[in-house]
Amino acid sequence: MADEVTLRDTGEFALISRITDGLAADPRVLVGPGDDTAILETSGSPIAVTCDVLVEGRHFRRDWSTAIDVGRKAAAASLADIAAMGGQATSLVVGFGAPADLPTAWAVECTAGLREEASAVGASLVGGDVVEAPVVMLSVTALGSLVGAAVLRSGAQPGDVLAVAGRLGWAAAGLALLSRGFRSPKALVDAHRFPEPPYAAGPLAAQAGATAMIDVSDGLVADAWHIAEASGVALDIDTTGWEVPEPMSAAASAYHVDPREWMLTGGEDHALLATFPAVAAIPEPFRVIGRVRAGGPEITVDGIAQQSSGGFRHFSG
Amino acid sequence: MADEVTLRDTGEFALISRITDGLAADPRVLVGPGDDTAILETSGSPIAVTCDVLVEGRHFRRDWSTAIDVGRKAAAASLADIAAMGGQATSLVVGFGAPADLPTAWAVECTAGLREEASAVGASLVGGDVVEAPVVMLSVTALGSLVGAAVLRSGAQPGDVLAVAGRLGWAAAGLALLSRGFRSPKALVDAHRFPEPPYAAGPLAAQAGATAMIDVSDGLVADAWHIAEASGVALDIDTTGWEVPEPMSAAASAYHVDPREWMLTGGEDHALLATFPAVAAIPEPFRVIGRVRAGGPEITVDGIAQQSSGGFRHFSG
Repeated sequence: MADEVTLRDTGEFALISRITDGLAADPRVLVGPGDDTAILETSGSPIAVTCDVLVEGRHFRRDWSTAIDVGRKAAAASLADIAAMGGQATSLVVGFGAPADLPTAWAVECTAGLREEASAVGASLVGGDVVEAPVVMLSVTALGSLVGAAVLRSGAQPGDVLAVAGRLGWAAAGLALLSRGFRSPKALVDAHRFPEPPYAAGPLAAQAGATAMIDVSDGLVADAWHIAEASGVALDIDTTGWEVPEPMSAAASAYHVDPREWMLTGGEDHALLATFPAVAAIPEPFRVIGRVRAGGPEITVDGIAQQSSGGFRHFSG
Repeated sequence: MADEVTLRDTGEFALISRITDGLAADPRVLVGPGDDTAILETSGSPIAVTCDVLVEGRHFRRDWSTAIDVGRKAAAASLADIAAMGGQATSLVVGFGAPADLPTAWAVECTAGLREEASAVGASLVGGDVVEAPVVMLSVTALGSLVGAAVLRSGAQPGDVLAVAGRLGWAAAGLALLSRGFRSPKALVDAHRFPEPPYAAGPLAAQAGATAMIDVSDGLVADAWHIAEASGVALDIDTTGWEVPEPMSAAASAYHVDPREWMLTGGEDHALLATFPAVAAIPEPFRVIGRVRAGGPEITVDGIAQQSSGGFRHFSG
């Protein structure tokens, strides 16, 4: 490892040039990396903007995830927020902090992961900053355009149905496995390493008339609480008929864990949770998991009221 | 200090609600903090977007700067980039990382400093993320609108004049004083704690026909290099006639330092360095400090060629 080229050898400016090398030309990006700011074309429609920060040791470990995994995961957190408004991500701006002894290849691969995840939804990396920091940290700001009105957390109405698109509990199961020293089943461990949010489902939900939407980053119940509170409603989740995905049921029985615990409280898969009018045609890949009721804010699961503190929170030890 | 309320006591969501409490209503912000993303109105004109990261121990020390100072400094770094394109900042998105034992009051005051600096230029804090991190770090993304065409680094033409607006070397002098254990002269020490970029000079320069512009964040010579390289020109800086500001000349003679060293290599004051056609009326507060010449890329100071490695670079130890 002593021969490995680190950021100390490469330096700030050479690193930036390697990170931005070969960025695909996007006609909406009038000025890309290399000036004081990027300059982006806009259509005149409102834009969505959001920021998510990933910190080594908190959100990922370098011995559990590859650099590409971490880049993809960091981008996905912000890109999923754009989808959860019904928007289409257009660009990313990244603040990247790292120790001087970080292998340069790690930094370059990590930003390649960011670019890969962005390009999967048609977005570009347009700018950023690179600084020295005690641990690796990525602050990803995503910008997006809206196809119609933004789908807020606050629009759920009594009588609406509650539906979810994407995976629940996979990342949590993967993290539980890694924490116990296992590296398989690979599908679960990979789900912790990088999520696969159902990005396209966000604009589809908006077009189908979704009344409220959020991405599940803290856990299904915790994020359902955000809709319940913002909309002033009760959400009744019904888990009867839920299929427990095969790798999860195997892992859960090996560890004597109820897999529904992972599915109800695990975050970081960035599923999309939305409410739709009862008369709406629920678009694929959403599946109905409950109903919106007057009253609340309240969340029930199979008729049992849930605490609001189920999800992950920072600073809580 | 044991009784002090920390982020561990306050928790993520209560901290966010204190940070965003009483945010001024801005009609351009259609959805502010509290949903998956902010939603911003746009005019259809291109937007400028940039990101700067400040890390405790690298860019500031909590025993040298107040929380408000740090917030102002973090915002200023990004807001000055928008000005350096000739733009007007409209909004900020902030990724905030901090240890769980950080006093909650520090975090709230720091973001108040961010909001204060943003509102000084008519911009709003519209969103962000709060995470646990080993040290305090702020990643500030600024968005801005352009009054006309963006002023890039690449447009300087032989025959143009080189001019600067704002302070040179004040922050570097302040840092030198603090590093030696002094807390005065206050004007210099304060300049390290929070810069006072000449924000309004950016759009003024654009309107006056500036051909290139950059904000001086790494040092006058280092940032002049960026213009010289991007434009493919030589910049001849003439320091004869430079007035050394009074607090700086006093401090420099006490420490047997040439104050021009601070003025030529000190960054973080976020002065604006621009080139204008020789026939242009140079707008206040710009002052002419040199000329653009064919050839290069090259920088001379009083006829002496300068190295390109004068400014601050990350990871260089």
